[in-house]
Amino acid sequence: MTLHTGRHTLQIPGPTNVPDRVLRAIDMPVLDHRGPEFAVLGHEVLADAKRIFRTKQPVIIYPSSGTGAWEAAIVNTLSPGDKVLMAETGQFATLWLTMANKFKLDVDVLPTDWRRGAPLDLIEERLKADREHKIKAVMIVHNETSTSCVTHPLEVRKTLDRAKHPALLLVDTISGLGALEYEHDAWGIDVSIAGSQKGMMLPPGLGFNAVSEKALAASKSNTLPRAYWDWHPVIANNVEGSFPYTPATNLLYGLKVAIAMMEEEGLENVWARHKRHGAATRAAVKAWGLDLVCQDPHAYSPALTAVMMPDGHDADAFRKVVLDNFDMSLGAGLNKIKGKAFRIGHLGHQNDLMLMGALAGIEMSLDIAKVPHRAGGVAAAMEVLKGREASPMLKAVVA
Amino acid sequence: MTLHTGRHTLQIPGPTNVPDRVLRAIDMPVLDHRGPEFAVLGHEVLADAKRIFRTKQPVIIYPSSGTGAWEAAIVNTLSPGDKVLMAETGQFATLWLTMANKFKLDVDVLPTDWRRGAPLDLIEERLKADREHKIKAVMIVHNETSTSCVTHPLEVRKTLDRAKHPALLLVDTISGLGALEYEHDAWGIDVSIAGSQKGMMLPPGLGFNAVSEKALAASKSNTLPRAYWDWHPVIANNVEGSFPYTPATNLLYGLKVAIAMMEEEGLENVWARHKRHGAATRAAVKAWGLDLVCQDPHAYSPALTAVMMPDGHDADAFRKVVLDNFDMSLGAGLNKIKGKAFRIGHLGHQNDLMLMGALAGIEMSLDIAKVPHRAGGVAAAMEVLKGREASPMLKAVVA
Amino acid sequence: MTLHTGRHTLQIPGPTNVPDRVLRAIDMPVLDHRGPEFAVLGHEVLADAKRIFRTKQPVIIYPSSGTGAWEAAIVNTLSPGDKVLMAETGQFATLWLTMANKFKLDVDVLPTDWRRGAPLDLIEERLKADREHKIKAVMIVHNETSTSCVTHPLEVRKTLDRAKHPALLLVDTISGLGALEYEHDAWGIDVSIAGSQKGMMLPPGLGFNAVSEKALAASKSNTLPRAYWDWHPVIANNVEGSFPYTPATNLLYGLKVAIAMMEEEGLENVWARHKRHGAATRAAVKAWGLDLVCQDPHAYSPALTAVMMPDGHDADAFRKVVLDNFDMSLGAGLNKIKGKAFRIGHLGHQNDLMLMGALAGIEMSLDIAKVPHRAGGVAAAMEVLKGREASPMLKAVVA
Amino acid sequence: MTLHTGRHTLQIPGPTNVPDRVLRAIDMPVLDHRGPEFAVLGHEVLADAKRIFRTKQPVIIYPSSGTGAWEAAIVNTLSPGDKVLMAETGQFATLWLTMANKFKLDVDVLPTDWRRGAPLDLIEERLKADREHKIKAVMIVHNETSTSCVTHPLEVRKTLDRAKHPALLLVDTISGLGALEYEHDAWGIDVSIAGSQKGMMLPPGLGFNAVSEKALAASKSNTLPRAYWDWHPVIANNVEGSFPYTPATNLLYGLKVAIAMMEEEGLENVWARHKRHGAATRAAVKAWGLDLVCQDPHAYSPALTAVMMPDGHDADAFRKVVLDNFDMSLGAGLNKIKGKAFRIGHLGHQNDLMLMGALAGIEMSLDIAKVPHRAGGVAAAMEVLKGREASPMLKAVVA
Repeated sequence: MTLHTGRHTLQIPGPTNVPDRVLRAIDMPVLDHRGPEFAVLGHEVLADAKRIFRTKQPVIIYPSSGTGAWEAAIVNTLSPGDKVLMAETGQFATLWLTMANKFKLDVDVLPTDWRRGAPLDLIEERLKADREHKIKAVMIVHNETSTSCVTHPLEVRKTLDRAKHPALLLVDTISGLGALEYEHDAWGIDVSIAGSQKGMMLPPGLGFNAVSEKALAASKSNTLPRAYWDWHPVIANNVEGSFPYTPATNLLYGLKVAIAMMEEEGLENVWARHKRHGAATRAAVKAWGLDLVCQDPHAYSPALTAVMMPDGHDADAFRKVVLDNFDMSLGAGLNKIKGKAFRIGHLGHQNDLMLMGALAGIEMSLDIAKVPHRAGGVAAAMEVLKGREASPMLKAVVA
Repeated sequence: MTLHTGRHTLQIPGPTNVPDRVLRAIDMPVLDHRGPEFAVLGHEVLADAKRIFRTKQPVIIYPSSGTGAWEAAIVNTLSPGDKVLMAETGQFATLWLTMANKFKLDVDVLPTDWRRGAPLDLIEERLKADREHKIKAVMIVHNETSTSCVTHPLEVRKTLDRAKHPALLLVDTISGLGALEYEHDAWGIDVSIAGSQKGMMLPPGLGFNAVSEKALAASKSNTLPRAYWDWHPVIANNVEGSFPYTPATNLLYGLKVAIAMMEEEGLENVWARHKRHGAATRAAVKAWGLDLVCQDPHAYSPALTAVMMPDGHDADAFRKVVLDNFDMSLGAGLNKIKGKAFRIGHLGHQNDLMLMGALAGIEMSLDIAKVPHRAGGVAAAMEVLKGREASPMLKAVVA
Repeated sequence: MTLHTGRHTLQIPGPTNVPDRVLRAIDMPVLDHRGPEFAVLGHEVLADAKRIFRTKQPVIIYPSSGTGAWEAAIVNTLSPGDKVLMAETGQFATLWLTMANKFKLDVDVLPTDWRRGAPLDLIEERLKADREHKIKAVMIVHNETSTSCVTHPLEVRKTLDRAKHPALLLVDTISGLGALEYEHDAWGIDVSIAGSQKGMMLPPGLGFNAVSEKALAASKSNTLPRAYWDWHPVIANNVEGSFPYTPATNLLYGLKVAIAMMEEEGLENVWARHKRHGAATRAAVKAWGLDLVCQDPHAYSPALTAVMMPDGHDADAFRKVVLDNFDMSLGAGLNKIKGKAFRIGHLGHQNDLMLMGALAGIEMSLDIAKVPHRAGGVAAAMEVLKGREASPMLKAVVA
Repeated sequence: MTLHTGRHTLQIPGPTNVPDRVLRAIDMPVLDHRGPEFAVLGHEVLADAKRIFRTKQPVIIYPSSGTGAWEAAIVNTLSPGDKVLMAETGQFATLWLTMANKFKLDVDVLPTDWRRGAPLDLIEERLKADREHKIKAVMIVHNETSTSCVTHPLEVRKTLDRAKHPALLLVDTISGLGALEYEHDAWGIDVSIAGSQKGMMLPPGLGFNAVSEKALAASKSNTLPRAYWDWHPVIANNVEGSFPYTPATNLLYGLKVAIAMMEEEGLENVWARHKRHGAATRAAVKAWGLDLVCQDPHAYSPALTAVMMPDGHDADAFRKVVLDNFDMSLGAGLNKIKGKAFRIGHLGHQNDLMLMGALAGIEMSLDIAKVPHRAGGVAAAMEVLKGREASPMLKAVVA
């Protein structure tokens, strides 16, 4: 039985803990979304969101989940039969490519073992081989929330550049934005897809598309039908700080505060904090003698850490021990690693002591559940975290 | 300059005032949407929502605005080229038919003067003439929020029945549900479309589809592409109290409380309250000597009242006087009655004294703005409202 | 049965409606009251409170009700056997003098009929007659919440000055501060006593004393025992932004926001708004043909209006009709006017339309309860309120 | 610089973390404290509070801090010159005896070294020697928040019984109630003194007195002047669910929810949880090689743990390292151990992972601050906490 005293420890890789300031902002009376006060808010949050995506181009905000933002990226830029290149890096890439198939895209899927990022060499090979430029888009998942492996968008950009290929670059950074370094403009992303409930520290309910000029151009000639997701009426209304249909007013109140908090901390500091927490968590996992799902250090995620269970031990049974004994939610292994892995979220509104509480809960639960492991994970994580003071060069320490 | 002391008077026809209990429920930490505690909530709100729609059939809850729920109804049941019958009863009917056109439906539009409900005789005529049953759906707006004219869904149902026509009946009850009498099952509706921010007393961010067996059958053979809006994965996940993508957790907390409040009052009492408030508001308008937009008493809306401005007076200038002097938001006239009409919302979390405050603000503003009118609107509304005590048969009094 | 839909109309003369911003500020995690973050808050609210009292001298903030702040004023300045001069202007004056008796003060009570302010002529007479200066304090209630009669502190000050009498001037402005013009320093008040739950727009739980140099001097030689209420340790701790015992942290968060809101509106505008609302309410009462409790126009309260019921009609029965029919709370008649009068609060977080809703509820209830009256009170109040636009000189209009 | 991301870790021994449910209850509109809805609440919270004190006798609730509740206990039962017996067990005992002196009590102080509970043998000796029963009260602090040493009230009761002494037994359980086992009736306590901001999980602002028949009898003949603190008008009003002056309405909303949460957990489970957390924290301190302030295992507090700093290291400098590096507030050493000790609060709304986060923050800070210590405190605490599963007999394990 779960003891519900004290705060629940929510350590899933999204939805994440929502700061009190953000929740309290959401807990305010609804405004007239056509009135002058809302217009001020509309202008503010649209400008704010651009700074988080690092773009000067339009950011579209939908009342939707992140899945809706995936769909928006597709129906605004592509047409049935269009060839697109995707890497099946995990469960979310799989879901996105399933969606692409539903819209009759011709998806060229590059498989992986779900333990690393997208195969850049194969992407580049395909692009170079595509002399007729039949590939209309490369679609990648920045931070694969099912595996904790990162595909670096800038590196994908470079494959396109080296191949001199005009395909659009669509990036799902749903669990990346606000946690991992991200540069929509500087990295030449055409559509960046995000959601509210991860690094953005909001409840679920907002989907985002940041769109390049090239993506906007594509949206004028593609043929997939669209209405709700159509960028153009949104962009047209946004000029007045308004939206073509009723926006999720109260989540926008929260968005304003969440971005203010990220900027008070400093976006670079937010990224560095996530890297430190990833490093500390991996140190714990290694000390326990458990395997990381992600096999490529270059792809380690700062936002979450997926951990393989030893053979013969069920990850979901283990998660139940954790929940029952310590009132902590961990993420499940999904699809092909269901029952074989669990996931520790450490993104969003987190700090060192929240993470240490979580790691202590895991270490104690490994013992309670009689999962073979070594003690010392918590101690190893503390070694990483307390290094902060010794070295002012945070990035160097935790890179 | 708006004086922001005391509570803003939000008297637009949606979003509406959110009860404190609902806002405070939303203002709670996010749960793991895959955990056991969420599953309990999921089962509860799905069951709760059915009672509000008066259905035993599935209710789909989307993270979306009401516009998204329109799109869901279309892409789940229809195919490009399908003939559908719609009445252009106002701005929202117009927007919905514009959307239908985007999805390549063949829309047969029955025009109106925007001052009454849908032309039932013409609908019946078209249905009877359609011997080959090319019309796949009749799509009507229950409560036209732009005109305050109601089209009674049961009366439309009867035209279908009399014509023995198998077309689907899709009803937008976005500003009807939770305010006007509604019976999804008993009235034979195939898809009921609703949103959170009107009679449901929630912030915007949830869209609803209640769907009949017949609609579900149609969804298995229609050909419009869909992913986010697809009913089937939602229904499949709902069996476990979960959703195929991250639901808008915190709005679901609020939904549970909002429905509890509606049921504490009694759904029939909620409907009767809206009728009384409609009657009181119209009494005020008539006493002022102003015209109602809605010209057919049978179509008068219990949820809002749209009022024509006298010639030579701009409704938006008047609304600005109201906002500046009394910190009250009224709804604007939309599209072809922009500047010519304003709208008084009286739906959702309302009571007599909130309405009286609003009517007093309008009466004072008519004077301040030098709009030709007679005094006595407030007094006339009080006559209607205080009748409550005299007659226990509330429905009879205010019908 | 009370219908609890929409917002309850709280029209008692305190506690008053708490703004959403203030409630949300209170709804934040508790801080370490000995830490640096709290110290910043402590310094801020202490400085803020001084501006509201219009003083540069210390303001003491207690975790207490206003009754506690009465006691603090007594035990810090007086000694058993001290002669004090009080006017029994109503129930709260009566309670305060009962308290003075408990502390063995020798209270010289000037009676009134509870329908006017304190008898200034008699006060002056007593002071002038007291050649030996045995009277140690004049204790008056600024805004008598039981009668809606004001005693103007500056006028009392002048009686002291004319009598060249050194007595302390202690003023209960519990329901005056933040509603009525008040000047602790300029009017030569020695102890101003206030509470959080009236014009200050906070929940109950804070008591205030603003104290002059002369009062502080008196506190060094008086002999009533004291500990909790002792000003000196509080003042000593306040230098560091802290308190000698655990302060009511969350109410202090709210205090900061409430004062910010008052200053956004402008304290003079706050006072003017209360005067307008008093004028409008009295216009309604007169139009109804009912008697005001307060018989002296010079003493009319801007903060509330007490109304006599016609003979043969019980005020509490009437208040029950109001509560049952319109979910509105009015204040009861207290003590000698129990059942004979009811009180309409219009102080704190109020605006014109809230007041109009309240007056409409009263007018309808007079009819429902068959209380003899004339219609037209609501209309009369609107005449007063809509005058705003016509005349920019608000004070002149509503004085 | 403090990094304010994630939740602040508030690990002081009060005010403690307030549960979200409690804060949200407080964040509701103020009610008419004289109306029927409030009366229901009043009756409920008064009945609820009795169950927490384990009494069938009156519980008085003041708008005040705990210090006010100390004063209430004194002024209701004692008279100037009365002899009382107190043990100076720490800073709070010292403050209370200073207060007793201010009310001219004749305090017989039993000194201690601030590292153990009250000297029961000396208390018994004094009582037995007092053949004339001049001692009117024994006044003890249950949980000395400055030292983390407990004096068990039942053991004091037994000294009175063995001495057959009629003195009143006044117990300050401000930081005991809701954390440590407590039985007002069964242990024969005459006045139990408590506050809202410790084990009761509320913000500061409420003080409590639970009073025996004997204490009530004493209050009818003692001679200290009183008004605000007078039990009798409160008890008289409480019969109707009301209070003689405006109660702290919103804190009462919170009190109801806080007690509901305690009873959902089970009061015995609450006590057992605090004992486990005390045991785990002491295990950490011992592993670090640091000294506990409390030298008597029988007196170890389940609510907090005070820790001596090694010579040459300043506790406040250490607390600053903790705050700056990990955004955690610890309690300071007070008075004679200022700078020499710090205090870890583990009472109220706490769970294992919150505690582990806190202990990890301390262990890392010891290293950062170069305080001589051994690693392993966190590991030792985990050994205690994970024992839960192995042994169902929780009390036995952690006693």
